[in-house]
Amino acid sequence: MKITILRNYARLIARTGVNIQKGQDVILRCGLDQPKFVELLVDECYKAGARKVKVEFEYQPLVKLHVRHQTVTTMAKVEEWEKVRLQHYVDTLPCRIYLVSDDPDGLKGVNQAKMAKADQKSWPVIKPYSDAMENKYQWCIAAVPGAAWAKKVFPGLPKGRAMEKLWEMILFTSRVTDDPVAAWEAHNKDLASRCAWLNSLGIAELHYKGDNGTDLTVGMIPEGEFKGGGDTSLKGIFFNPNIPTEECFISPMRGKAEGIVYATKPLSYQGQLIENFSVRFENGKAVEVKAEKNQALLEQMIAMDEGAAYLGECALVPVNSPISESGLLFWETLFDENAACHLALGMGFADTIKGFEDKTLEECRALGINDSMIHEDFMIGYEGLDIDAITRDGKTVPVFRRGRWAF
Amino acid sequence: MKITILRNYARLIARTGVNIQKGQDVILRCGLDQPKFVELLVDECYKAGARKVKVEFEYQPLVKLHVRHQTVTTMAKVEEWEKVRLQHYVDTLPCRIYLVSDDPDGLKGVNQAKMAKADQKSWPVIKPYSDAMENKYQWCIAAVPGAAWAKKVFPGLPKGRAMEKLWEMILFTSRVTDDPVAAWEAHNKDLASRCAWLNSLGIAELHYKGDNGTDLTVGMIPEGEFKGGGDTSLKGIFFNPNIPTEECFISPMRGKAEGIVYATKPLSYQGQLIENFSVRFENGKAVEVKAEKNQALLEQMIAMDEGAAYLGECALVPVNSPISESGLLFWETLFDENAACHLALGMGFADTIKGFEDKTLEECRALGINDSMIHEDFMIGYEGLDIDAITRDGKTVPVFRRGRWAF
Repeated sequence: MKITILRNYARLIARTGVNIQKGQDVILRCGLDQPKFVELLVDECYKAGARKVKVEFEYQPLVKLHVRHQTVTTMAKVEEWEKVRLQHYVDTLPCRIYLVSDDPDGLKGVNQAKMAKADQKSWPVIKPYSDAMENKYQWCIAAVPGAAWAKKVFPGLPKGRAMEKLWEMILFTSRVTDDPVAAWEAHNKDLASRCAWLNSLGIAELHYKGDNGTDLTVGMIPEGEFKGGGDTSLKGIFFNPNIPTEECFISPMRGKAEGIVYATKPLSYQGQLIENFSVRFENGKAVEVKAEKNQALLEQMIAMDEGAAYLGECALVPVNSPISESGLLFWETLFDENAACHLALGMGFADTIKGFEDKTLEECRALGINDSMIHEDFMIGYEGLDIDAITRDGKTVPVFRRGRWAF
Repeated sequence: MKITILRNYARLIARTGVNIQKGQDVILRCGLDQPKFVELLVDECYKAGARKVKVEFEYQPLVKLHVRHQTVTTMAKVEEWEKVRLQHYVDTLPCRIYLVSDDPDGLKGVNQAKMAKADQKSWPVIKPYSDAMENKYQWCIAAVPGAAWAKKVFPGLPKGRAMEKLWEMILFTSRVTDDPVAAWEAHNKDLASRCAWLNSLGIAELHYKGDNGTDLTVGMIPEGEFKGGGDTSLKGIFFNPNIPTEECFISPMRGKAEGIVYATKPLSYQGQLIENFSVRFENGKAVEVKAEKNQALLEQMIAMDEGAAYLGECALVPVNSPISESGLLFWETLFDENAACHLALGMGFADTIKGFEDKTLEECRALGINDSMIHEDFMIGYEGLDIDAITRDGKTVPVFRRGRWAF
């Protein structure tokens, strides 16, 4: 990959992605796959004004060893110094960049129940800090190729060529052109106009219907708003949490979902793939799941906490998005969620409430935003999906037809 | 490299190196060069009984970016949470493994003065914690090949072959045989008997004399003892701080060194090479240094603090050690210090005082152990070096002749 385009990409993440403010700290979490790109990105973070960039390298195979050998108590333990560090992050609000490159099957065989137990045990300690930071700092998830991931996306290509091809596809779908900052401004404008139209309808319910058996009605929060593309933190800083992104999304009303929905792509959860599954909802809650592969893992996922069985997000993405048109299955949510309409189980986004800036997190949740330690997207869109909006004044407005925007 | 021999090496580091105790934590610091070996090593640490292994990956090129873009104040700042973490380490005494693989020239061009300033500023904050841990935990430095390092050692070989060859030499010089634990037991026994003989002499001074101009007399501490190979922490745990090691070493009397000494190999200091240099001592202090390359850096090194111009170590290594006989210049202290007699400027080792277990660090320093934020070895041994011991009862005993043990 040419250095100039990679530098454009790094600059896009630092500026359009997290939009680093002068003197702000940056925490960059990444794998060991692309150190040269990490170097470029750190340089661009400093050039954008960062005070200090802290890189936290992670190596997936070590996770398996930790889970195998540590006790649940050790895994779940949050040391005193780690709490002081969390408080430091609450006080200083560093931006966070996550560079995704992991093998989608990288945690195959790990003891999921043990991992889940540890997460559940540590969450009550971490949650107050997490809540205190919610919507206050800029963050961005972007991707770089890893060897195992590239082989998974392009199984027929030799390793080097697969890596190259994955770089090409990441850069293409992320709109990394000669002037990606301008390309993202135009793209954000387009997403914003779709959201404005949706928000003008006064939607009470979305009705999903597909010839694959999907027939699901999801209730909206009256104060809810569709959002897409860039976002603004509570500190008033505009940023783009996902590169790429194609979705208009909203958090639905907790407790209002009826019917069944069929996944149209596998879900990668904690390094393992759940395939060919359906979820049936009653009174907003997932009461029955069926999966051809990893059903137990899916059941465990929705039992992580009280909110894990409720919806946190409805996202609209046409089947003619660049990612969808690439025809590739990326085996990675960041991409696959932008190739098709999807739902998420678990935590909802308080910032989809109109005027959330003046509300507490608790007030947003009281309006119907779901709360959970998980947030897991799963794809339901495809060429056969229709979506209607049932408005508060009783009209039915077509939103999607045959997987595409109806307007 | 065969997986079985690499696993032997990993086990050697975990058992003979740091000798992990059941339930002890381990901190492993390493580069990005050999993740597969890190995986093996972490596995062996757990198998040896570690409660938790924390891997801190570091990437040298990022250091250059941090130094270029951060202010000295930012670089030197020790955050509150970092102090709490240091206290946690004082309380729990994790073992520490350092896997060396960096490019010896990797920090070429970095602003050394700025780095030094930051180190000097942060040291007073870190020092109390460092002192509180001194000699209480097990640690081990060992090496794995990095690509740039391998090319530096074997400039004539293609990259892959150079890496392979460096692996071979690391494993050979580290005595990684079919049963390395047994090989290290025998080797430790041999080093211990050399030390016992040296300690039986009652040495008042060592007199170094070489046909390269070296003529230096260094005074010993009456309570000082030569040590070599394995060491025992204040908690009573035997460990091997260096893999490989060939030296019998002692910390000399601060303030007692007269004459001049010529370095016989380059010194790699903070990622840059100081070459062809000499140091002249008066009343124990380095009063004049001359270097054909990087003289300013050497001058800066000995000015880091009050103790940086005083000796902290005298180490005896024959020119017929395995490392020396390999004929290679490793450009890495861990190896090169075990190919030749050397001295160190800076911090001395309190645990070379007889009965140090019952003394405070301050008491050891009052006896003549030097204190400094640096400890930098430089090689002075070669085929032409003689060393005499002048004993407390006035005898002269030959210790080295023509670079080899005289007994």
